Amino acid sequence: MPTATPIGINEHDLSRVAFNADGLVPAIVQEQGTGRVLTLAWMDEEALRRTLTTGRSWFWSRSRQEYWRKGDTSGHVQWVHGVALDCDGDALLVEVDQVGAACHTGTRTCFEGRGLDAVVLEEAR
Amino acid sequence: MPTATPIGINEHDLSRVAFNADGLVPAIVQEQGTGRVLTLAWMDEEALRRTLTTGRSWFWSRSRQEYWRKGDTSGHVQWVHGVALDCDGDALLVEVDQVGAACHTGTRTCFEGRGLDAVVLEEAR
Repeated sequence: MPTATPIGINEHDLSRVAFNADGLVPAIVQEQGTGRVLTLAWMDEEALRRTLTTGRSWFWSRSRQEYWRKGDTSGHVQWVHGVALDCDGDALLVEVDQVGAACHTGTRTCFEGRGLDAVVLEEAR
Repeated sequence: MPTATPIGINEHDLSRVAFNADGLVPAIVQEQGTGRVLTLAWMDEEALRRTLTTGRSWFWSRSRQEYWRKGDTSGHVQWVHGVALDCDGDALLVEVDQVGAACHTGTRTCFEGRGLDAVVLEEAR
């Protein structure tokens, strides 16, 4: 199990985050190593600060209207290796080591086994 | 260059998508093969239908208030291999082959080189 060594928040970085009208930004969570996209969750500024300073992923639950730290009830902790902000500042990419299943349904990711029927692509000859 | 073979939309699948109050759902775009998360963009139902039936990624531009098909101006087309809906229906994962740079700034992804300073994790001894 890793230990987290907090470093200072870069306030300039933080000021570039374009939170939406509800004060939230979508955070894509990706598994380090495999590249699997585990889930999409939402952070407000406080959740982002906690994530950046603790090395655990914190989110804002829109349904429960409260902070949650991933893994506190399930044990399925996410250890955060990095957070990147996109080009226009309105999305985050969070790289993690995932303990156990990322999805509350028990699947490895929230998208696994949930493909929609789509177009079939074929290489042109 | 692939050719797209449209198949029918599964209306039941589509009815499970939980669009937000603005009629939009966030779409994470991931590169097939490398697993790179390229960008996060937004789809309304029409953009999702077009994506599913044409094999090209369509989005709704919130800033321009119009549909855009990725690559039409830049040439940086996304060929769609699959679309998955997450466990609670409010996020999409779109797997693509990316032609050229995904980001309008010229970087390969919209997150590349845009890391925030964060906690340092160390393996416990």
